[in-house]
Amino acid sequence: MIVRNLNDIRKTDRNVRSDGWASARMLLKDDGMGFSFHITTMFAGTELKMHYQNHLESVFVLKGKGTIEDLATGEIHKLEPGVMYALTDNDRHIVRPETDILTACTFNPPVTGKEVHDETGAYPADPEVLRATVLAE
Amino acid sequence: MIVRNLNDIRKTDRNVRSDGWASARMLLKDDGMGFSFHITTMFAGTELKMHYQNHLESVFVLKGKGTIEDLATGEIHKLEPGVMYALTDNDRHIVRPETDILTACTFNPPVTGKEVHDETGAYPADPEVLRATVLAE
Repeated sequence: MIVRNLNDIRKTDRNVRSDGWASARMLLKDDGMGFSFHITTMFAGTELKMHYQNHLESVFVLKGKGTIEDLATGEIHKLEPGVMYALTDNDRHIVRPETDILTACTFNPPVTGKEVHDETGAYPADPEVLRATVLAE
Repeated sequence: MIVRNLNDIRKTDRNVRSDGWASARMLLKDDGMGFSFHITTMFAGTELKMHYQNHLESVFVLKGKGTIEDLATGEIHKLEPGVMYALTDNDRHIVRPETDILTACTFNPPVTGKEVHDETGAYPADPEVLRATVLAE
């Protein structure tokens, strides 16, 4: 059994920060759960264009508000506490946080912790095509 | 892309209630994510003895407090907002909520939605050994 505290994780290198978001990786691939679990903040006023080509992801909103646009359909959905979106088809999407949005995210396959979003808004596949990117702190 | 709201799920048969807990299944097996994701409440004053023999589970505490006892080691950990436990070894455990505890849970393999905890505290394996249990509402 693993027991971890978000406040502790935030003081370690499992807490990563990049353009417009910060993520505390509570569970990563090497924990052996078959998924990874992150507490992620998307920052107010940013526009986050994302396309996870290699991962399925669900995002449950804990705090804050904004919108998500599904780029395949043009549909815009409100984000607020209690709303979950799941990227079932590696959906290209844009999140526009009006306030900071705190979320609980699950990834399948699990994130290794060494990826950052690349120029397409994706996490690279693990591990063969892992790009030589550097975690922005 | 799937977008769902916890308040809506709570009005459907994806919200199940059993002895000591209630769970809103935001994602189940048939959503195709490869994991299931649940917002689960464990009720104050109960003692929940559980043993998921067929599933790995992570539990992130959103609200409330209590303890979890790892029956393999006898260790007792405090549960409070920000604490996550992950059952990496199908760990037998007891949760003792002092208040209602609201959690975000991920299961691998995904729960189908037709299981309830059986007499051993497990979810049956899917689907071959699915027991003829009835969801308690």
